Amino acid sequence: MEDTDFKITIIGLGLIGGSYALALKELKPSKIYGVDISEESLRLGEAMEVIDKGYTDPKEPLMESDLVIMCVYPKLVKEFIKDNMDYFKMNAVITDVTGIKSQFVEEVNGLLREDIDFVFAHPMAGREFSGLKYASKEIFKGANFIITPTDRNKEQNIKLIENMAIKMGFKNIEKVKPEIHDKIIGFTSQLPHVIAVSLVNSDNSGLDTGKFTGDSYRDLTRIARINTKLWSELFLGNKENLINEINEFQQNIAELKNAIENEDIETLNKILSRASKKREEMS
Amino acid sequence: MEDTDFKITIIGLGLIGGSYALALKELKPSKIYGVDISEESLRLGEAMEVIDKGYTDPKEPLMESDLVIMCVYPKLVKEFIKDNMDYFKMNAVITDVTGIKSQFVEEVNGLLREDIDFVFAHPMAGREFSGLKYASKEIFKGANFIITPTDRNKEQNIKLIENMAIKMGFKNIEKVKPEIHDKIIGFTSQLPHVIAVSLVNSDNSGLDTGKFTGDSYRDLTRIARINTKLWSELFLGNKENLINEINEFQQNIAELKNAIENEDIETLNKILSRASKKREEMS
Repeated sequence: MEDTDFKITIIGLGLIGGSYALALKELKPSKIYGVDISEESLRLGEAMEVIDKGYTDPKEPLMESDLVIMCVYPKLVKEFIKDNMDYFKMNAVITDVTGIKSQFVEEVNGLLREDIDFVFAHPMAGREFSGLKYASKEIFKGANFIITPTDRNKEQNIKLIENMAIKMGFKNIEKVKPEIHDKIIGFTSQLPHVIAVSLVNSDNSGLDTGKFTGDSYRDLTRIARINTKLWSELFLGNKENLINEINEFQQNIAELKNAIENEDIETLNKILSRASKKREEMS
Repeated sequence: MEDTDFKITIIGLGLIGGSYALALKELKPSKIYGVDISEESLRLGEAMEVIDKGYTDPKEPLMESDLVIMCVYPKLVKEFIKDNMDYFKMNAVITDVTGIKSQFVEEVNGLLREDIDFVFAHPMAGREFSGLKYASKEIFKGANFIITPTDRNKEQNIKLIENMAIKMGFKNIEKVKPEIHDKIIGFTSQLPHVIAVSLVNSDNSGLDTGKFTGDSYRDLTRIARINTKLWSELFLGNKENLINEINEFQQNIAELKNAIENEDIETLNKILSRASKKREEMS
């Protein structure tokens, strides 16, 4: 990215795409283009100076771009790559923000031209709102960034994406196999969303719950304002891991319930102390 | 509290007791005393000017105090009231910060002198740290405050506690029966703690989880840094309500799991949309 003629295209100018564009401006690429089906988002992106220019037809920006960042839903990534592979610049690098990897990586790799290098990544950042107007480069500050390298990747391109993440403000960059990513994300990201949704749906008090909450309920349910379409895709795309994690959680909550039901104070204290210690030690 | 000789004693000078003292200073009582078994906390409270004077023996401050605020664990509230009833000033008002009410209220009411009015309350605020040094009046700003009036309470004393809460910065004051309090708190406060603990204890990845988390995991598990002794007491003191709420939650998570397992997209979308809408509407 020291190259003074380095051009970037962002596919999908929503919350994450817009936030990427804002964070990437600091790297001073010669141009940042945006591609979206919404003319409105593109014009807004230009007006906010988030992008240099917006396109509904990706052909032109793709032909010029050294780095392409896919910020659309998993299925759309595949469709887009399939439909537009011919237009990518020679030796272009692609990266993404997709929350599931194993099967997805395999399918996408099957669609790539020989010279194109796709470095799969997952920025662990977001907001409970969607759309370009909520875009902010602040969401990446101090966050985790996961790269899932594949055998196809050139070392220099993995480095490129790693440097990009550091310059965008991510605190920690981990490189793991796609399968490991999906297992751990099933636990750290998908299971919390499953829990938050189930907690909100358990509310049958008939009262105005918001008047009886402390920070705990608000914190635990913030992510229940969920993007239904995206998360359905993510859950089903990582079904096996997620079901395993839900099972493990169900077992843990059942044990705690039994201890309460039986007034088994010793077990209760053991369970609470274990969690408290574990949470305290978390980096 | 317009009375210029209005004196307050706080029993238990930990995080909540200290925070109360700080917030109550704004009401300009003539004196705020602190009672604690720890000399160290009392001297720190005096040095920080959180209290005017600290005592390990409650006799002297109780005899002078118009308002006494019980900021210790539920069982200790009962013991303290029982042991020290004789020393309370004539017509003193007592309030508390206890997270469970029904049985507790009944038991405490059985220990009170005829002239003493105990207005039971529950400030929905806290921090994941304990101890006076973390005390801050900021924790009450914008928070919810619940009063559970009883037949014994004088209207003017309920008003006194209500005004106190407003001046301390609480945003919303609700008055409900003790049984209603315990049902709703089983859902909004105790269930989230049960969930957070169970989530942290489900971590069996063997990886450094903190490097693979987004805000969601951190938000959902913050309260897993739990005060074991306090929360064991609270869980068992509201056992029946809490078990009901856990059952309801278990049913909801099982439904969501089934929808994922069966790739039943229609049901999945319905569940996610319902939660999202419900959370959005929360005041």
